[in-house]
Amino acid sequence: MSLVKLYDTTLRDGTQAEDISFLVEDKIRIAHKLDELGIHYIEGGWPGSNPKDVAFFKDIKKSKLSQAKIAAFGSTRRAKTTPDKDHNIKTLIAAEPDVITIFGKTWDFHVREALRISLEENLELIYDSLEFLKQNTPEVCYDAEHFFDGYKANPDYAIKTLQAAQQAKVDCIVLCDTNGGTMPYEIAEIISAVKKHITTPLGIHTHNDGECAVANSIQAVHQGIVQVQGTINGFGERCGNANLCSIIPAIKLKLKKECISDEQLRHLREVSHFVYELANISPEKRQAYVGKSAFAHKGGVHVSAIQRHPETYEHIRPEVVGNSTRVLVSDLSGRSNILAKAEEFNINLDSKDPVTQEILESIKDMENRGFQFEGAEASFELLMKKALGTHKNYFQVMGFRVIDEKRTDDQSPTAEATVKVKVGGKVEHTAAEGHGPVNALDNALRKALEKFYPKLKEVKLHDYKVRVLPAGQGTASSIRVLIESGDKQMRWGTVGVSDNIIDASYQALLDSIDFKLHHSEEK
Amino acid sequence: MSLVKLYDTTLRDGTQAEDISFLVEDKIRIAHKLDELGIHYIEGGWPGSNPKDVAFFKDIKKSKLSQAKIAAFGSTRRAKTTPDKDHNIKTLIAAEPDVITIFGKTWDFHVREALRISLEENLELIYDSLEFLKQNTPEVCYDAEHFFDGYKANPDYAIKTLQAAQQAKVDCIVLCDTNGGTMPYEIAEIISAVKKHITTPLGIHTHNDGECAVANSIQAVHQGIVQVQGTINGFGERCGNANLCSIIPAIKLKLKKECISDEQLRHLREVSHFVYELANISPEKRQAYVGKSAFAHKGGVHVSAIQRHPETYEHIRPEVVGNSTRVLVSDLSGRSNILAKAEEFNINLDSKDPVTQEILESIKDMENRGFQFEGAEASFELLMKKALGTHKNYFQVMGFRVIDEKRTDDQSPTAEATVKVKVGGKVEHTAAEGHGPVNALDNALRKALEKFYPKLKEVKLHDYKVRVLPAGQGTASSIRVLIESGDKQMRWGTVGVSDNIIDASYQALLDSIDFKLHHSEEK
Repeated sequence: MSLVKLYDTTLRDGTQAEDISFLVEDKIRIAHKLDELGIHYIEGGWPGSNPKDVAFFKDIKKSKLSQAKIAAFGSTRRAKTTPDKDHNIKTLIAAEPDVITIFGKTWDFHVREALRISLEENLELIYDSLEFLKQNTPEVCYDAEHFFDGYKANPDYAIKTLQAAQQAKVDCIVLCDTNGGTMPYEIAEIISAVKKHITTPLGIHTHNDGECAVANSIQAVHQGIVQVQGTINGFGERCGNANLCSIIPAIKLKLKKECISDEQLRHLREVSHFVYELANISPEKRQAYVGKSAFAHKGGVHVSAIQRHPETYEHIRPEVVGNSTRVLVSDLSGRSNILAKAEEFNINLDSKDPVTQEILESIKDMENRGFQFEGAEASFELLMKKALGTHKNYFQVMGFRVIDEKRTDDQSPTAEATVKVKVGGKVEHTAAEGHGPVNALDNALRKALEKFYPKLKEVKLHDYKVRVLPAGQGTASSIRVLIESGDKQMRWGTVGVSDNIIDASYQALLDSIDFKLHHSEEK
Repeated sequence: MSLVKLYDTTLRDGTQAEDISFLVEDKIRIAHKLDELGIHYIEGGWPGSNPKDVAFFKDIKKSKLSQAKIAAFGSTRRAKTTPDKDHNIKTLIAAEPDVITIFGKTWDFHVREALRISLEENLELIYDSLEFLKQNTPEVCYDAEHFFDGYKANPDYAIKTLQAAQQAKVDCIVLCDTNGGTMPYEIAEIISAVKKHITTPLGIHTHNDGECAVANSIQAVHQGIVQVQGTINGFGERCGNANLCSIIPAIKLKLKKECISDEQLRHLREVSHFVYELANISPEKRQAYVGKSAFAHKGGVHVSAIQRHPETYEHIRPEVVGNSTRVLVSDLSGRSNILAKAEEFNINLDSKDPVTQEILESIKDMENRGFQFEGAEASFELLMKKALGTHKNYFQVMGFRVIDEKRTDDQSPTAEATVKVKVGGKVEHTAAEGHGPVNALDNALRKALEKFYPKLKEVKLHDYKVRVLPAGQGTASSIRVLIESGDKQMRWGTVGVSDNIIDASYQALLDSIDFKLHHSEEK
């Protein structure tokens, strides 16, 4: 079975998208996820263009990847210089990646208008840049920018630029639909033409301006192309790049070619959502394969059919990409979800038990108010314990006060919190400072409770997410806070919702502490 | 030039999408918009399935459409009856649409499992249902459900079902990829095979489960199919239907076939947003052709190029679909982005001017600290004014205090803010309450400043977004606040970043007020 290599550029081309910018730490975390998913090449950035990318290539060396190769991106040398003197090319080599990918001009119009050099000079520039890189790096890819537009404008010259790269013995020549306007039938025609002239392994890099990026990549793989460039969730400039979350399952399940393992494929949905989280963008429900609605059935006809035979209205089994079938507006499905969740937490619920219905009702009510239990299982477990009467009150918060103060016009605000808690008969009254009101409140709460429950010292806050729920009225809109906490053994998520961010955060903080106390006792 | 007819099913298949349901009034309004856009067929619903759809067909008759034909959707007759006695078929005719479209089974597996009748019976059922409808309606379409899956399972039988429809002299046979898992190369192969057996005009109906719906439809049109079914914005069950907002411009601009007029095409973006509005779903920024980001450029290399020649990085001219080019400012930006933005704000900057470099540096520095100016153009304009020394200090905040208090364990927290501002020589000291600390601070700030600048009363806060920057350490992580404000004339966005949410919100609130004051004076 022939192997198709996956080349991810989420960390480079993906960050060209509006609203997307990753910190160096995010890029490192994403690189590890991509490595686990089985991506063969991870393009980390353009070292020449900004300090953030230089830092990435330095840091990624310290962390061990299991199999992925790290690629650095750049361009051919400038005119009127030699590769060894070209700043951009020198920074690429200095970054010491496993692979270097540079782009060059294919479209005669660009050579004249953008580079303002002769067509002949451009060919030399492609050849000697690549030839120099081949001597200084283990693996070199060539991105033929605007290849399809260039070919349509001047096929002979477009092919000449590829031949220049082939002559430099590059490891892969990538045909790019940079402007994303190429149609699937053009891809088919042009690739067959290219294969008459080029024997170097070919890759494909498409954009979604015509909403054809995925189909164009699939068409290319169907024609024997061996490297596919794209991004997780199709992040990228304008309408985005080719979406690897749709291309990977197509390669494995439709084209039946090798790329990642079945086990890795089962993590596809998880990786998609992880990248959305770090980009702080809410996942696209309708997204193919991995979206929340991708296997959601509403039509009555469909629902009854899929319950007997899923293949009647599902093109693949959702489990193979880590997704699942959902039946919409159906109490039945709601109930079975509750039962499944309860089982997860070793709480035995009976589907006939009225408590099950009770929990279902309160969840629907809370979800209408903006609660969300995905990623807040700890709050969900506490909710069930309360409904079942197995919840314990380890402490009671009598009250608190948080003060943010800016004393002078040149001084930045400080935060201080005071808290009064009651445990058993005893009342504890403490104060603490913090970075902002929520952090101060958190510090004061723990300070008060650690006196009674030293185990709380183990608890660390790992993440704190704030979402303003849609249709809100300015700062008065309702706010959802998700908190991720952890100790040596485990991690847990809690949620709070209110029109007051302090209140929402307070709810989530309280659940986090409450959950820890319940679990350390159960052990 | 050959004509491709557009068949919109937003009002029927589109409403199968999760979260989408239209009132009858919405459906009527959308039908008029589609008529103006030049859509040839508007499928209004399934009269047999629900009262809402029956009402639509009654009401739409009262309102005059300029050219679109109204289609009603249903299924072939049930087994063991005749068309004239079949309830579903009778309601279809009773609805008196211009066109009736019914679907039938192509896939032998479905015939046996879903209908539970013999393959032969299914052929009769297709033939006599259509034959009866032809006698009672001006125009009849046949949707061959699961055609592509059916053909792959049993090509001979799949073709037989189409031949039954052809024998009944239907006006169009529509090949449906009901489960949306068909690949573009399969579409090409299968359509060529069909054309060997069928002379009736062919249509295509695809779903997006493989993210190939648009490409598959375009491929079909390329092969001479004369009717395309789809929905506005690709609304539809699971991953959605084929998106007409991407298919229409492809037919006109890429395939160069006739469908709607150039003038109608210029309203495409408007229609897309109108339907999003009525569906109460926020538009997809990255959407091809009509999305807010579809022609947004971030990379410095790209920006400088499109300014000289848009076609260098734009596959079409945005104006032809009613969209426009946008330049984004980010840490990937070069000098050219800054200059372009400055121009937008009528600030004349010279690329050689050291100030330009200065602004560029401070932006890159601020973005490393987590600032983001996309959606915060007002803060960006103030930044430039400060660098150019044209910024005015209308007021000075001497200090503030925000108190969040929870007095008892059963009472939810309240927020109160006090603010001291200085304008000219005068000092104003006020207090206000609010929903949470930020809202309270906002109220107090305006209360204090409106005394000096009554114009501030016009300013409304439209949106408030909080982002906790990834990889932060729990609640101490750094926080970005984006605020959108507006008055009668315009809307503007401002940004603040700090490890303290109050401080970040304060920065954004201050910029919002500052921007308003600068602009009302410039007028």
